[in-house]
Amino acid sequence: MSAAKHDGGWKRLSSRYLFESGWYNVRQDRVALPDGEEITYTQVEHPGYAMTVPVTDDGRVLLERVYRYTVQETLIELPCGGVDGDAPAVAAKRELEEETGWTADTLLPLGSFYGSKGISDERFHAFLARDLRDLGRHEREATEQIETFFVPFEAALRMVHAGEIQDAPSALALLLAERRLAGSTT
Amino acid sequence: MSAAKHDGGWKRLSSRYLFESGWYNVRQDRVALPDGEEITYTQVEHPGYAMTVPVTDDGRVLLERVYRYTVQETLIELPCGGVDGDAPAVAAKRELEEETGWTADTLLPLGSFYGSKGISDERFHAFLARDLRDLGRHEREATEQIETFFVPFEAALRMVHAGEIQDAPSALALLLAERRLAGSTT
Repeated sequence: MSAAKHDGGWKRLSSRYLFESGWYNVRQDRVALPDGEEITYTQVEHPGYAMTVPVTDDGRVLLERVYRYTVQETLIELPCGGVDGDAPAVAAKRELEEETGWTADTLLPLGSFYGSKGISDERFHAFLARDLRDLGRHEREATEQIETFFVPFEAALRMVHAGEIQDAPSALALLLAERRLAGSTT
Repeated sequence: MSAAKHDGGWKRLSSRYLFESGWYNVRQDRVALPDGEEITYTQVEHPGYAMTVPVTDDGRVLLERVYRYTVQETLIELPCGGVDGDAPAVAAKRELEEETGWTADTLLPLGSFYGSKGISDERFHAFLARDLRDLGRHEREATEQIETFFVPFEAALRMVHAGEIQDAPSALALLLAERRLAGSTT
């Protein structure tokens, strides 16, 4: 569910791009605030990404160790990638296949969230992926240094609460999947 | 807990700044990948922020409606702001006071997470805030169009699962607080 778009009384006076790429843009606006004050607001424009929580029939989840240049760390994450103009579920399945060599016959939506609303419009779409099948191949890009591994789903939850999964979208998607897997209807 | 910093075999060849501000920077690097390929990587440098899940003795949580220019929507969020060089707990308490007019005598860490690891090094630090007191005043900036409101904690959890809380850090912090409040030790 998305809230209604509105301008909040902020009036965009002008825009220019500081950076444009096929991945994301940085846009700088002059804006009049509701009280009339003029400010410069610089934000990221990002097309969004899709993420899966791939859970096998016997209750294991497929995780990745990914080197992230931005933070100079190897993070534990869920499979995830840009929507690239596709519907979120299509992108989620494509990225799962490309990064891990596994596919899923069933995708159940877990929600859509803004990851960094102060500076970016990026939104991610999370899915619980079930009925997994091993395709026996993957197609990674040179910037994708990824190792995949399975852990019992309960172990992944313990990793979230112990601070071992530092990627917020992955941690959130795992906690949302926990409830879905438990079949709770609260 | 933070993972060890390492370069992953990525060698930074040069850097320049496309944007610098007191809020965040955009840095563009030339980088040699482990296989020798040279690429341009453009990322946000952000000092991080601190967030509280303020829960009263009678089990209500203090939320905000905040207009977000980046996404042209009013989002439901937890109190949150930049660390500004302070320790995360100090920043968390300061932002709670400035945005809501409430303070907390007890802050319990819920974890630290990267919000947008693909393009930014921004990290947020989440705290459960207890022993709340109403200071009867707040100090908001002109860009902070904030309304505060209380809901029962269980209602906030339902809002997360119903897609009404679209801010990923807020949704994650609420789910982490759920476990802390339940006193689980799994």
